[in-house]
Amino acid sequence: MQPGRRTVCGVLTEALSTLARRPVSLTVAGRTDAGVHATGQVAHVDLPPELEPAPLLPRLARMLPRDVRVRAITPVSSDFDARFSALRRHYRYRVAVTPYGAEPLRARETLSWPHGADLDAMNSACAALLGEHDFAAFCRRREGATTIRALQRLRWLAPEPGLLVAEVSADAFCHSMVRSLVGALLAVGRGQRPPGWPAQLLSRTCRASEITVAPAHGLTLIQVDYPEPAALAARANQTRRLRTSS
Amino acid sequence: MQPGRRTVCGVLTEALSTLARRPVSLTVAGRTDAGVHATGQVAHVDLPPELEPAPLLPRLARMLPRDVRVRAITPVSSDFDARFSALRRHYRYRVAVTPYGAEPLRARETLSWPHGADLDAMNSACAALLGEHDFAAFCRRREGATTIRALQRLRWLAPEPGLLVAEVSADAFCHSMVRSLVGALLAVGRGQRPPGWPAQLLSRTCRASEITVAPAHGLTLIQVDYPEPAALAARANQTRRLRTSS
Repeated sequence: MQPGRRTVCGVLTEALSTLARRPVSLTVAGRTDAGVHATGQVAHVDLPPELEPAPLLPRLARMLPRDVRVRAITPVSSDFDARFSALRRHYRYRVAVTPYGAEPLRARETLSWPHGADLDAMNSACAALLGEHDFAAFCRRREGATTIRALQRLRWLAPEPGLLVAEVSADAFCHSMVRSLVGALLAVGRGQRPPGWPAQLLSRTCRASEITVAPAHGLTLIQVDYPEPAALAARANQTRRLRTSS
Repeated sequence: MQPGRRTVCGVLTEALSTLARRPVSLTVAGRTDAGVHATGQVAHVDLPPELEPAPLLPRLARMLPRDVRVRAITPVSSDFDARFSALRRHYRYRVAVTPYGAEPLRARETLSWPHGADLDAMNSACAALLGEHDFAAFCRRREGATTIRALQRLRWLAPEPGLLVAEVSADAFCHSMVRSLVGALLAVGRGQRPPGWPAQLLSRTCRASEITVAPAHGLTLIQVDYPEPAALAARANQTRRLRTSS
């Protein structure tokens, strides 16, 4: 939600408020910067009990603009919190490394990077970043929010010729963290920095200004994991204790 | 090329004419209707011999708009004709069959079809259309152009949940043929027509007005096949004899 700006959260809150005939409030798993995509976002909302979930999906499909889709609606217990119950978030970052740039049909979600990208060097840099660290160098600091995160996956794949895709998973990410990681790894891939450089930044206690944050449009939130229903409340309480910002 | 309209051919001809410092003329393998995409289009052009092919690719990448990309440039013999040497064209048509419509990041190249689509019925209808037939029922007739085509592949796949993709290959297609085939098959998938209906239309000698032509934006030309270099001239002569329009 950003006053005066069109956002996915704003558009969806408006449609749901119309259906509920009263203002509702949406809680999302992963807030994304302007220009970042989400194909696997999760949100929760309290709706009047008389609203049946099944007919809601086609009604929302008709009400929402074509660039905002709700793929599924599931009733949950009050223990479920889209943000605080989440176990981990999965992102991908698409980079076209061809001399001619991104394929037009995928350009909206793909960075054009005709500067060279050494996959082995980038993946070597990734391996040294895995695990629980203070990612302060990679974060835009927010008052009272921890920058200690458990980075569970960070690797580059080459799923088709001319395309590199980063897979990035963590319990949670601080602000601009994925785009800063990708920016640092692309500097390694281009040969501007050695593979050991991104991990050296983990000793910093504040943002590293020498990192070029990668553009927003290559990044997509693709999945959010939750525990089994019985563990939802415990997970939410644990997360709320640990941090005030995810 | 369409006077007064922005087309891929027009944009590309303009850029190549600038590089060649003289007007050049582009011959393309498959002319596509407005709104149809092409990821595997092939074209040929005569350029001044002093223009080296290798540096052309990055120069074109900088000159062309982001929605037109040249992926490769290859010198060919004068026997090569992008249109008449082609052995076959391959298209795909993407259909989202979810109740919520196409994924926003793929909506530009995907038809939203929340009406049901019986994959078995559609593929049964496809099988009866394969081979050499007069596809007059599926073609917008052009004066002097044959409507006899050899349909080599026509099948629907379900590569991911909620998505159907038609693969369509032939030596050549007459005007609006792929979109008419897809439209007829979707009518079968929805249960409006029996699986035998599309093949029954093959006995017609002119366009079948009861076919709803599928929208352009779901269709993409993905590949054009050519013979080995030694066979190029023979193939072009054979094609020119057989038809005046591909």
